[in-house]
Amino acid sequence: MPRPWSDGQELRLYQDALDQVEIADRVGFDYVWEVEHHFLEEYSHSSAPEVFLGAASQRTKRIRLGHGIVQLPPAVNHPARIAERIATLDLVSNGRVDFGTGEASSSAELGGFGVRRTDKRAQWQDAIDAITRMFVEEPFAGWNSPDIRMPPRNVLPKTVQKPHPPLWVACSRRETIQFAARNGIGALSFSFVEPEDAGRWVDEYYRIIESDECVPAGFAVNPNVTVVLPMMLHEDEATAIERGIDGAHFFAFALAHYYGSTPHDPGRTDVWQEFLERRASRGLSREQIIANAGTLNVNVGSLRGAVGTPEQVVDLVRRYESVGVDQVSFVLQAGPNEHEHICESLELFGKAVLPHFTEGREEREAAKAERLAPAIEAALARRKPARTSPPGYRIDEEAEVARASRGRRPVEDIRAAGRRRFRQGFYKLVHGRSDAQIERRFGPAAQRVFFAGMARAYDPSASGGFTGELEFRLSRADGEAVWTLGIGKTRARARQGPAKDPALTLSVATADFLRILAGDANPASLLMDGRLELSGDFELAPRLSEMFGGPSPY
Amino acid sequence: MPRPWSDGQELRLYQDALDQVEIADRVGFDYVWEVEHHFLEEYSHSSAPEVFLGAASQRTKRIRLGHGIVQLPPAVNHPARIAERIATLDLVSNGRVDFGTGEASSSAELGGFGVRRTDKRAQWQDAIDAITRMFVEEPFAGWNSPDIRMPPRNVLPKTVQKPHPPLWVACSRRETIQFAARNGIGALSFSFVEPEDAGRWVDEYYRIIESDECVPAGFAVNPNVTVVLPMMLHEDEATAIERGIDGAHFFAFALAHYYGSTPHDPGRTDVWQEFLERRASRGLSREQIIANAGTLNVNVGSLRGAVGTPEQVVDLVRRYESVGVDQVSFVLQAGPNEHEHICESLELFGKAVLPHFTEGREEREAAKAERLAPAIEAALARRKPARTSPPGYRIDEEAEVARASRGRRPVEDIRAAGRRRFRQGFYKLVHGRSDAQIERRFGPAAQRVFFAGMARAYDPSASGGFTGELEFRLSRADGEAVWTLGIGKTRARARQGPAKDPALTLSVATADFLRILAGDANPASLLMDGRLELSGDFELAPRLSEMFGGPSPY
Repeated sequence: MPRPWSDGQELRLYQDALDQVEIADRVGFDYVWEVEHHFLEEYSHSSAPEVFLGAASQRTKRIRLGHGIVQLPPAVNHPARIAERIATLDLVSNGRVDFGTGEASSSAELGGFGVRRTDKRAQWQDAIDAITRMFVEEPFAGWNSPDIRMPPRNVLPKTVQKPHPPLWVACSRRETIQFAARNGIGALSFSFVEPEDAGRWVDEYYRIIESDECVPAGFAVNPNVTVVLPMMLHEDEATAIERGIDGAHFFAFALAHYYGSTPHDPGRTDVWQEFLERRASRGLSREQIIANAGTLNVNVGSLRGAVGTPEQVVDLVRRYESVGVDQVSFVLQAGPNEHEHICESLELFGKAVLPHFTEGREEREAAKAERLAPAIEAALARRKPARTSPPGYRIDEEAEVARASRGRRPVEDIRAAGRRRFRQGFYKLVHGRSDAQIERRFGPAAQRVFFAGMARAYDPSASGGFTGELEFRLSRADGEAVWTLGIGKTRARARQGPAKDPALTLSVATADFLRILAGDANPASLLMDGRLELSGDFELAPRLSEMFGGPSPY
Repeated sequence: MPRPWSDGQELRLYQDALDQVEIADRVGFDYVWEVEHHFLEEYSHSSAPEVFLGAASQRTKRIRLGHGIVQLPPAVNHPARIAERIATLDLVSNGRVDFGTGEASSSAELGGFGVRRTDKRAQWQDAIDAITRMFVEEPFAGWNSPDIRMPPRNVLPKTVQKPHPPLWVACSRRETIQFAARNGIGALSFSFVEPEDAGRWVDEYYRIIESDECVPAGFAVNPNVTVVLPMMLHEDEATAIERGIDGAHFFAFALAHYYGSTPHDPGRTDVWQEFLERRASRGLSREQIIANAGTLNVNVGSLRGAVGTPEQVVDLVRRYESVGVDQVSFVLQAGPNEHEHICESLELFGKAVLPHFTEGREEREAAKAERLAPAIEAALARRKPARTSPPGYRIDEEAEVARASRGRRPVEDIRAAGRRRFRQGFYKLVHGRSDAQIERRFGPAAQRVFFAGMARAYDPSASGGFTGELEFRLSRADGEAVWTLGIGKTRARARQGPAKDPALTLSVATADFLRILAGDANPASLLMDGRLELSGDFELAPRLSEMFGGPSPY
């Protein structure tokens, strides 16, 4: 949407785009891909593709609805919100979603959302692992990474396509194509690349897909490579160029503007004006294209792409097809391109270009699937499987919020640091030792020190307002040690002996108790194995560990 | 979607809901309201309303598309993402969005996203201020609060409705209705309330709207109060109850389950089973409702709501109308309610209930608008206006990301801290000094120290795998200083003298070079002014600054 802007222009742009998608569906296009870009004035006003694709789902019947791409850094989109919107789109479209992903790359976006460029690749890898698990795990078993913390939840709704919609990643360089292959997902190559170069990329991509370098990021492999080209079609070549070349060139110019180092003043910089002033010096000369018309050379310098006649575009797509490119995507809504011309191009494409590529297509795809099946099976065996968490987790808002905040706060508070050190030392005392060894070290004096320490470590913020007595019955080879912690509003006190009116009693072997506190045993497992017994107020149990500064798995 | 779940059930639920919205639009309903709930199994599988409402926009012509509500805590939805999706929905629906907001309240949601209950009200107030400014400020002038940090950006697209869609807030208590009034926005009262109680709430709401307590949260006032009731219609009362009472009761039961303190094990707890076992003891007895049929008492205990005949519901709505309630919302998709019965109810409502309330409606609304106009004008004068930031801001990714991270990162890594200190000291040496002064300080010894420091600061993670030589030709009043940095895989080395085979050569005045490195000059501007010349691999240039821990120009 090049400047100057007029009232109602965005409305027209969006309504036109919906009409165009409807035509594309009708004439036989397989995919519509929509970007997610933020703050990129004039270049892209498509910042909420989940909404637009939701709308497009009801204007179309068959076409696949592709996110090209969703920005995965958690500061832009929370992973659970991404899983939810992908699943919802899959439901309203009856299983037509393709889930393209990316990291965001422009300074406008990274700076706008506070995403560190050096972190974004790791964030992508972390987020796609979490999101694909949200699709398949029921419940999602929780997450604890530097950028994503989430307790166990059943993320709803679930996708129609199983295990989940096909995954893609945006690529702009050879390294990212390799990266896509290593992750077993489709490569959406958003760069202008000649067929011969594309061929080398494709070969490398499939070599990796079929090698043990491929460890799928999701729970299915999507082996596909796409290239992107600007497009405008007309039976008369000069008309096609007249209609489409400014859009193609502005697309390239604005891309360089936002992804290069050109200064940008939000709300003020006039990218269209800069384009008019500088296009010639950037090799984006309208006159030069017109002078060289006649052969449709896909030349990255000229950026003419698929602006030409149907015959020229058939020839061009053939060249990509012959080197193994799976899909060619066309950019039509660029710069000042007119809606009517875009619609005409789509119709003409359906009539005069598409039929050249539909014959034998199912057979080709079946052959490809068969050829890759063993490699895909082997790759999926390398992916860490979906987790099944044991039942018995209880949603505990206060503890969960406290955990989510940990590590987000600038400085760990001193008490928490003390607790952490205590725990670490404790782990060393317990880990790998036999019951007898642990018990021996935990005689009456050690018990006194330990329970006094536990009382000191008491964190009232994790108790949910509980006051009362907790009783610990620790069995030993030589009998039983019984201790009681009296929990007041702000502090706790330890004393030896049974409680008068215990809110909760834990009965457990001394060694297992110490293992739990040291983070060396899982209380839920012990409970299921009958090695830990509880009586009284069960709801207190999941909080206990945290009430005394113990570790949490989430 | 009560358990047990079957394959394809969510698909049917979503497709049915779209059909229902289409009917509601056709028969004359004014609004469809859709919740945003996360992880609330069985109670609500509507977690991405932006997608569903996007779809609904293309199945309807006239009905308003209401978010009831969007969760505003920034950990759930980034404020810019909210502004973007609201605007996009406004564009695809041609201006039919109502923007309902809320804070999230269930433990499943607050714990799931790590939102502290005591913070969420402040977060709502902070976020709605930022979001409404994103709608009207061009560019949005930026934000810096404990929960939201964002540099200046033009948030795109803009809404069709000006200044923005009507604002609402979810209310469940008398205090939140007062809160809505103080913020000058509509009250979406998602609680079951008798007409007489509703009347007291409405009076209080409008008293505050017309008082100087009202300081609008947005840039327009939306004076409206809605109440919510479960509904099922049939000409035969017993049939209406038979069809609708389990849904109405399950809705109330599941609400209490998630918003009370009932334990919930994600993916395991069977809320429907618990409902069957406990409904009677909660006053949700099917038999009792049937026994008392005949008069439609809206009784919060029985929760029968608008389950009855058209005549009964006309009477009920009249009672709400008579006490000044502006809108009644009906819950139909609840529990096991069947799609066919919901569709029949919608049709019957359009035929036999709605006509009683349409006559004179425009006049009533015009009278209300006229009555409130002076109060609204006065209220808007109390709202802090949209800001106009001066031109000249430049997107600066590194500085922006650093600002966003402040207070978020636990510990800045030592190397980064060293680089920052180096840069700050450096800035002081350079800023405000003349070329001659800077050159004087940058003699051969200083050059040696400086380039050695640059080599030490080299960050291989920012180089994109580049190895090779970078040549720096720094012109001075007394000639030229030439230095070369040899970049290896993990480290860099500095040496005086020209490179043998430079990948990139920078030619620039010594003073300008130091200003760039100190963040006191913009390399892109220098490049455009011809004060910085590059030769070689241009694509390296934008990376240079980051490769050496310098500030980024964009």
